[in-house]
Order: sequence, then structure tokens, then C-alpha cells
Amino acid sequence: MSPGSRREPFFRHPAQVVAFAFAAAGAIGTVLLMLPTSRAGEGGAPFVTALFTATSAVCVTGLTVVDTAAYWTVPGQAIILALIQVGGFGIMTLASLIALFLSRRMGLRTRLTAAAETRSVGLGDVRRVLRGVFLITVVVESAIAVVLTLRFRAEYDDTWGTAAWHGLFHAVSAFNNAGFALFSDNLMGFLGDGFVLMPISVAIIIGGLGFPVLMELLRTRQPRTWSLHTRLTLLMTVVLLVGGTAFITLAEWGNPGTLGPFDPLGKLLGGWFHAVQPRTAGFNAWDYGVATDETLLGTIMLMFIGGGSAGTAGGLKVTTFIVLFFVIVAEVRGDDDVIAFDRRIEHRVVRQAITVALLGVAAVIGGTMVLTELTDLPFRDVLFETTSAFATVGLSTGITPKIGDPGQFVLVALMFLGRLGPITLVSALALRERNRRYRYPEGAPLIG
Amino acid sequence: MSPGSRREPFFRHPAQVVAFAFAAAGAIGTVLLMLPTSRAGEGGAPFVTALFTATSAVCVTGLTVVDTAAYWTVPGQAIILALIQVGGFGIMTLASLIALFLSRRMGLRTRLTAAAETRSVGLGDVRRVLRGVFLITVVVESAIAVVLTLRFRAEYDDTWGTAAWHGLFHAVSAFNNAGFALFSDNLMGFLGDGFVLMPISVAIIIGGLGFPVLMELLRTRQPRTWSLHTRLTLLMTVVLLVGGTAFITLAEWGNPGTLGPFDPLGKLLGGWFHAVQPRTAGFNAWDYGVATDETLLGTIMLMFIGGGSAGTAGGLKVTTFIVLFFVIVAEVRGDDDVIAFDRRIEHRVVRQAITVALLGVAAVIGGTMVLTELTDLPFRDVLFETTSAFATVGLSTGITPKIGDPGQFVLVALMFLGRLGPITLVSALALRERNRRYRYPEGAPLIG
Ligand SMILES: [K+]
Ligand SMILES: [K+]
Repeated sequence: MSPGSRREPFFRHPAQVVAFAFAAAGAIGTVLLMLPTSRAGEGGAPFVTALFTATSAVCVTGLTVVDTAAYWTVPGQAIILALIQVGGFGIMTLASLIALFLSRRMGLRTRLTAAAETRSVGLGDVRRVLRGVFLITVVVESAIAVVLTLRFRAEYDDTWGTAAWHGLFHAVSAFNNAGFALFSDNLMGFLGDGFVLMPISVAIIIGGLGFPVLMELLRTRQPRTWSLHTRLTLLMTVVLLVGGTAFITLAEWGNPGTLGPFDPLGKLLGGWFHAVQPRTAGFNAWDYGVATDETLLGTIMLMFIGGGSAGTAGGLKVTTFIVLFFVIVAEVRGDDDVIAFDRRIEHRVVRQAITVALLGVAAVIGGTMVLTELTDLPFRDVLFETTSAFATVGLSTGITPKIGDPGQFVLVALMFLGRLGPITLVSALALRERNRRYRYPEGAPLIG
Repeated sequence: MSPGSRREPFFRHPAQVVAFAFAAAGAIGTVLLMLPTSRAGEGGAPFVTALFTATSAVCVTGLTVVDTAAYWTVPGQAIILALIQVGGFGIMTLASLIALFLSRRMGLRTRLTAAAETRSVGLGDVRRVLRGVFLITVVVESAIAVVLTLRFRAEYDDTWGTAAWHGLFHAVSAFNNAGFALFSDNLMGFLGDGFVLMPISVAIIIGGLGFPVLMELLRTRQPRTWSLHTRLTLLMTVVLLVGGTAFITLAEWGNPGTLGPFDPLGKLLGGWFHAVQPRTAGFNAWDYGVATDETLLGTIMLMFIGGGSAGTAGGLKVTTFIVLFFVIVAEVRGDDDVIAFDRRIEHRVVRQAITVALLGVAAVIGGTMVLTELTDLPFRDVLFETTSAFATVGLSTGITPKIGDPGQFVLVALMFLGRLGPITLVSALALRERNRRYRYPEGAPLIG
């Protein structure tokens, strides 16, 4: 497995590069948002408000403590948009490069680049990934922006200028799974309008599949040749979208505050849109404060699972969970190996998945504990909020502005941890290699 | 690993034996509790009430839909006591025998019996386990019953007869981790009385360690010679008791409805007692309906983890969780093997632990979903209730009687599943042996 490859020109400590880049972008964004020109009201925004908004934007989360439409000026909103774009582009390229770097180092077969025989990641690879992400981003965002602009102009009496600004902002916010919107009630005015909700859904799903999957889909549409990662990601995406839509549509079917007033097709559209959001875009076309407990609980689970690796989605990633699912399948069938789509998933990957999932649970429970201590808000809403922050979703039952300054710092920490934690954890873990000469004798505690 | 041993005189399908025995005991108990002599009021108890109470007793859970002290006659209470004793003795012996059977079959070293060289479980082993469990049960229950009887007689103006009946009932209920009490407010009259709370705590902890651990502790007090299972169980028990006491004491320190009125020592006693209950006894000396959100959340986690394997405790068992913890440690340290106390935990055990933990999460979430759908009760209380039922704890925020007949069936199913699920699952899994000749090529999806 090429243990002797010592020439890695780009990454030495990939995890550090990523964390530093995001912290720097967040800091710059905070300073810019504190400028008086960014704020619509008098003076500049307070530090905590600017920090929270910049972190939420650069981590493409979308939680807000102020009304994006009313609190910020157009230059302020443009800063938010730039932070979203930098954050989304950054996480997509860096995560892809880390995956590429690790697969080379591990000697794993990869289809990410044509030059699969070279063993180290060179500048050529970096250029190829940057160009690929850039092209996909520009193409998808432009197409969605055009569709949205036409719709806003045609149906909502916007001027061409306003329609174009709204179209661009929401296309970028959707593709990067950010969930920021330029309306005071997010997208609640558009529940029932498929010409707004569907393009946004499409942008969210494409961004959330992740760069490695997109590249493979662009290269070939022969499912037989897809890598295990692509198959698992697509399978889980379809399962969660279909299952989520059915569940949420049924849970809100008769709720007068959400889907109640709509005809069956409108209900299905609304259910679909809110099944897309937890993976992990965070727009809302209804008020989650009046959604049913079933919807909130189902949404919490969908948010925690999240989207695809090395894309703009957050959460613990679909592959993490489907690997654990196949562990159960192997266990129940009595197989020695964990098998998925005729591929053996090795213990290393299984252990990474366990580690990421359990530490994710710990982060969400820990954050919930601290916020429960800091505030008197209902447990259900706090759990929803911390999951939303950690999975960088941005959905809220409406408690974000009530959570107080210390609570906002907790959410900032969760957003940062959720955005960078899993990827840096896995890369750090995968780079560690420690072979013990001596194997301890076996012990077998009773389980269950 | 002795594949040819075909002489298992006692167990052919251990999981079926256990499930059948518990269902039968529950059915008999239901019929007996429906008799008019069992009920204090007019007529016999309704079917659902009898079924719920009998299941709760035989699964040693302790959830109640009626006031045990007022609703049932002394003969009715004696039936409940008998069901608790049958259930506790049954699960302890059957789980121990299954563990013994599996360890023999797997060729693992075991210290449960002296005759470690024989490979199949014979009648001699069965007799040895039955006698061991019987002796431990009688000795612990008698000792605790005497202490409680003296205290009830001395301090609470009971007659000798009442004191003895109360002493016996609560000793049996404690050792078997059942949580049933003969006072309308459970043990709320005894918050602050260490002479009642401490003996009960001791009985709970001993019963919850599990028979294999108790046997090993009785055989030798040389920690060096303890099995990995015993070390892990003791470590987790101490960690959870100390950590749980600190957490709950602090969370309730100033709560006027719970620890507020007591001096620091009384607060510590109350915190300790309610840190013991989630593992998984289910007595309460305060009203969980007025406990803080922190306490409820912490208690949910403790309940889910539960106690030791092959004892009277419920939950997913402490070893299940500490194995997952050591997986994270191994992953973070970059070790190839999962190591605990200089023993290598093999992948088979790790996969069992993942399977049990994830299916447990699925059961609790599923139950919570259904109950949320069936009732309008707060999410927090429903999650507490389903965890309590599944982990056979019996703590409640007070919603059990309000949950309705369909909801009671859900809780009955959760209690049964929680009592028998993990153990039968693991035994069924461990008995499957399927070696594939052909190994699939490796695939490595991205994680996180
Ligand atoms: K988001
Ligand atoms: K119990």
C-alpha cells in the first residue's frame, strides 16, 4: 500500500488547513458584517450577531438571530452571499481533495482523476478538482438563478433587478445548502408554488450529493461501473427523499398551520420540499413552530443523517449511516464480512462510521444539555435546534433569537464542529498508522 | 472451535425458550390479576390493566397504570411479587445459561463453571447455575428484607406484620430491579431516609451486576484474575454511579420540588438514589414530573445504557456501550485492534454491540413516534416513557395512566422487546455461522 510515498506537495496536515481556512473566513466575515454599511438600522451590528451570522453563512447553516431581509443592507446581504459561496466552494473542494489524498495514500482505487496510477496528490489534481467544482457550481447556480429570476419577475411583481438579485441569492443559497433567504418569513410565501420550490429542491439535492458522486455521474451513466461510494450515496438519497416525503406529507396532511389548506398535489409538493430541507438546506416554507411532533422528530433524524460526503451538505453523511445498516445486515445474516453491492466494507471503514456517529450523538446531546441549562426553552425545540446547528441545516422552531448570547456561542461552536468535525476527524484518523507487533489475547464481554 | 458438538441436551433454540417462558408467565399473571380477589375495588381488573401490570411485573419494569397500593388486594400484590420473582429469576438464569452455552459453543474461555473443559452445556451446568442464582437471590433478598423490616417497624409505626410484608416486597422488588412499591407515591415518603434508600440501592446494584460478575466476585477478589466482562461491567457501573450522582445532584440541587429542601448530605443521598434507579430499578423518591430537563435527559441516557448482562437489570447493558467506547479509543489512537484492559475485543463482538445499540435506538424512536401519534403528551415525557419501558426501568413523569389503551399495548410491546430483545438477538446472531468461500473485493465509501 505504498508506504514509502513521502512526496505530498499540497497537504501535510489537511485537517489543519481546513479548520484554519474556515476560521479565517468566519473572522473576516464577522468584521465585514460589523461595518455600519452592512446593517440597515443605525450603527454596526453587535459582535455576537455578526459572529453568529458569519459563522452560519460560512458553515452554510442558515440559522439566523436577525431577519436577513430587514436587518442587513444589500451590501450586507452580498457579504452573506459571498460567505456562503466561499464556505460551500471551500468545503466541497477541500473535502474532495482530502478524500483523494487519503485514497491515494491508502492505495485505494479511485475514479476521481484519470491519472489513477500516480500515488501522491500533485498540483495537477488540485487544479482538476478546483476546476471541476467551479464548473459544476457555476452551471448549476446559473441555471437555477435564471429559472427563479423568471418566476419572481413573472409572478411576484418584482422589478428585473430585484428578481435577478433574489434569483441569484436563492440559487447560491440552495446549491450550497445554506438556507438563507431574502424574505422575512424565509420561503413561507411560496408554499404551493412548484416553480419556486422545485428548482430550489433540485439545486439542494445536486449540491448535497457531493463532488465525487457528481464527477462519476458526469463521466458515465453506467451504474455497473459506479464506485461503491456513489451507489451508496444515491441509494440513501432516494430512500430518504421518498421515505421523508411520504412521512412528512402524512404527518402534516391535516395540520391547518402547514399543509391543511392545500389540495393533495400541493400537500405532496410541500411534503417533498420539507423532506429535501433536512439534507441539509434549511429553507422553510412553513413555520416549524406549528409543525406536528412527528414531523419535528422525523426531521431531527433526517437532519442528523444529512447528505453526501465532499459536497455542500452537512450532517453525519448518508454513507456513514448506510455502512452501519450493512453491519446490522451482515450480523443478522451471520456473514463474516460486511457486504454492500458485492463489495466488502473493511473494518477500518466500519470503525470510522461508528466513531463519527457516536461522537456526533455526543456533540448533539452535549449541546442540548448546555442549552437546556442556559435557557428555559422546551426540550423538543432545543434538541431540534442543536441538531440543526450541528448538521448545518438551519431549520428552527423559531427559538434562535431567544437563545441569548451564551446560547449563541454554543450554536456557533456546534455549527463549526458539525461543518468540520466529521471530515477532519476521519482524515486525521485515516492518516494515523500504528501497527502493534504484539497482539493482545482475545476477550469477549457479553453484549445485550 | 468444536464444530462437531451436537449434544446440547438443554438448549436447542435458547431464544425461543426464553420468549415462550416469559409470554407464558405474563399470560398466567394476566389471568390471575383479572380475578376479583386480586382487585381491591368491585369486580375483576379489566384485561388491559391486568395485562399491562403482569407484563410490567414479569419483565421487572415497574411502570404502572393503577396505584399498586390502592388498586390491588394483598393477594393481588402477592401475585405481582411472584411475577417479579419469577421474571427476575428467569431472566438471570436463562441469560446466564445462554451466555454459558454460547461461550462453550464459541470455544471461548469461561469461568462460569469449574468444568471448563467440557464443550457442551449439560444438566450439571444447568443445575449449577440454578443453584447459584437461587442462593444469591435468597441471601441478598433476605438480608435486605430484614434491614427494611426493622426500619419500617422502628420509624414508620408499622405493625410487625405490615413492616415484614413491606420489607419483603421492596427487597424483592429492588433485587430484581422491578421498581414496584406498596406506597401510592412509590418511595416519595422516604426521600432523605438513608436507612430505607441505601439498602434498596445496594440490592438494586447487586442484582444489576449480573450473575457471571457476581460468581466471579464470590470466587476471587483478585482483580488480576477477573475476566474482561467482569472488569468492564464493574468499571462502567462505578463510572455511571459516580457520574450520575454528581450530575443529578447538581441538576436538582435547588429544585424546590425535589432536593431543594434538604441539607447537602440529604441532597447527595437523593441524587445517589436517583442515579441508581435508571440502572434499571425504577423506584422514585421524588416526582419526575417536576424534575429538571437536565435530570430527565441524563436519566434517559442512563436508562438506555442500563445495567450488567445476565442479571436483573434492563437496558442495552453497560458492556455494549463500553465496547463502542473502546472502538472510538482504538480509532483515535490509530490501533488496528480494539483493546480493553490488555484484551483484544474481536470484530464479532464489536458488530454485536453496534447491532444491539442501533436496533435499541430504532425501537425507542419507533415507540416514541407511535405514542406521539396516539397521544398529545409532551415529546419529552413520551421519550422518557418509551426509554423507561424499553429499558424495563419503570420511571415515569406520570403519563403512564394517561396514555390510553392503544398506548398501553405499545408500552407492553416495548417492555417485552426490551427485556428479551437484546439477549435473544445476540444469542441468535452468535449461533449463526456462515462462512463464505468467496470474498468480495474491497470497497471504501467516504465517511463523514
Ligand atoms: K443549511
Ligand atoms: K425496573
